[in-house]
Amino acid sequence: MSASRIVYLNGEFLPFEQAKVPIMDRGFLFADGIYEVSAILDGRLVDNAAHLARLDRSLGEIGIRNPHDSAEWERLQTELVQRNGVTEGLVYMQVTRGVAERDFAYPSADTPPTVMMFTQAKTVAANPLAEKGARVITVEDLRWKRRDIKSVALLAQVLAKQQAVEAGVSEAWMVEDGAITEGSSSTAFIVSRDRKLVTRPLSTALLPGITRASVLKLAAEADLTIEERLIPVAEALDAAEAFYTSASAFVMPVVEIDGRAIGEGKPGPLTKRLRELYLDLARAG
Amino acid sequence: MSASRIVYLNGEFLPFEQAKVPIMDRGFLFADGIYEVSAILDGRLVDNAAHLARLDRSLGEIGIRNPHDSAEWERLQTELVQRNGVTEGLVYMQVTRGVAERDFAYPSADTPPTVMMFTQAKTVAANPLAEKGARVITVEDLRWKRRDIKSVALLAQVLAKQQAVEAGVSEAWMVEDGAITEGSSSTAFIVSRDRKLVTRPLSTALLPGITRASVLKLAAEADLTIEERLIPVAEALDAAEAFYTSASAFVMPVVEIDGRAIGEGKPGPLTKRLRELYLDLARAG
Repeated sequence: MSASRIVYLNGEFLPFEQAKVPIMDRGFLFADGIYEVSAILDGRLVDNAAHLARLDRSLGEIGIRNPHDSAEWERLQTELVQRNGVTEGLVYMQVTRGVAERDFAYPSADTPPTVMMFTQAKTVAANPLAEKGARVITVEDLRWKRRDIKSVALLAQVLAKQQAVEAGVSEAWMVEDGAITEGSSSTAFIVSRDRKLVTRPLSTALLPGITRASVLKLAAEADLTIEERLIPVAEALDAAEAFYTSASAFVMPVVEIDGRAIGEGKPGPLTKRLRELYLDLARAG
Repeated sequence: MSASRIVYLNGEFLPFEQAKVPIMDRGFLFADGIYEVSAILDGRLVDNAAHLARLDRSLGEIGIRNPHDSAEWERLQTELVQRNGVTEGLVYMQVTRGVAERDFAYPSADTPPTVMMFTQAKTVAANPLAEKGARVITVEDLRWKRRDIKSVALLAQVLAKQQAVEAGVSEAWMVEDGAITEGSSSTAFIVSRDRKLVTRPLSTALLPGITRASVLKLAAEADLTIEERLIPVAEALDAAEAFYTSASAFVMPVVEIDGRAIGEGKPGPLTKRLRELYLDLARAG
């Protein structure tokens, strides 16, 4: 939170310290809002068109008008990234249903949505965790039934991530009916012993990951066949390799699940290959 | 939102227009917070000790330190109610995990929680809807699995209530596995044809309603036997009477569910008796 940081709020670029929302913002009272995160690499936005398309889709699913078309969003994102001089990190975007006297039902249709963006400068490509590999735990998936909507109603994910932190690991994979749904802020993948790249098929049970989609497109280049199906926890523990994907983790090798080493207990070769391929793609723009 | 309205934010009583929270408040970014609502009748708080006990319990369940003991909460509530001259309506309280750079995991333990309160002046006792009776629809219960925690992650409830509004009715009763869990902002009750007062037993599937508990204590005075069990939708449609309870609706007669008249299609006599008993209790303090 440096003093010079600039954020975007409702049409204005303003110093971080001045960026505040009224207590009656529906994002604050009801988690009535949507967010997205795009990575920044070499000063450029990664997979951004897909993030903006998902933002539009999430907003539509809960009936919030998208305040900007994709070109305008990208113009605003780019200006924010440039004003902050961020060459590597991420840009966060949030849209809520706006400010109105507290009432569960939607306010009048002319209520302007709240639009907020900020950047975080951080190392995302040369991330030491990707060299060492991440450890994960499994936790119960407590979330609601519309996880395909990227809403700010993230309390279940907060509790899951905190369990991971308290266990001294990097991520929590959420489990429902004995199968892994996804990570608290990532998509879960395994590489099976017969060289299949396995991840859960899209449904309302999980977020349609943008990095997930890109990695699936790269599977053939890594000589992997794709299987979209449920992953039982027992199968994950016995996988040849495992990893998770997200906008900021890219492809993150998993070397341990619930204290059990995965494969050789170090980042797997196919996972490393996928990470390289993804970084090449991200850098190519 | 009158110009003279005073709200409470982090130790200060200040004009409504000045009450703003930083964009990094975890309530705004993650729905990482808890709320409560107490009714005000004849200038006094109704069932307030129970609301404050539930606030404390909810905060504990998600590991947020309760910033005040009950005596201090009540002192602050009372001062706010008096400053606004509210004799009938409600006081809303919200506590979030505070302000910190965005990261799913909890911020450092010394991060001060955000504490916010406001009042709404409204007619709660002589509510015309209670004379006429409310109509409700049933909707799918989309919520997470810890509904016993009164968190601000309310997007599912917002969507449910909006469906009710669009159907031209007052409330949505949420249904899971064929049984009614509760209303979007209320507890569901029926009176069976054999004079049983039926409501769902407490569990993680629903909020432990404060007004629910008070009404159950009054059942004997209305010559009703209590049955805490699941209510299948078909049984609700065929009930002798139905009603819902909440801090601001008190006991609200239901005269129609999914377009089907309940009982005589007007507020039932036992429901009216329970409403009177509850109002007497609330006024007695």
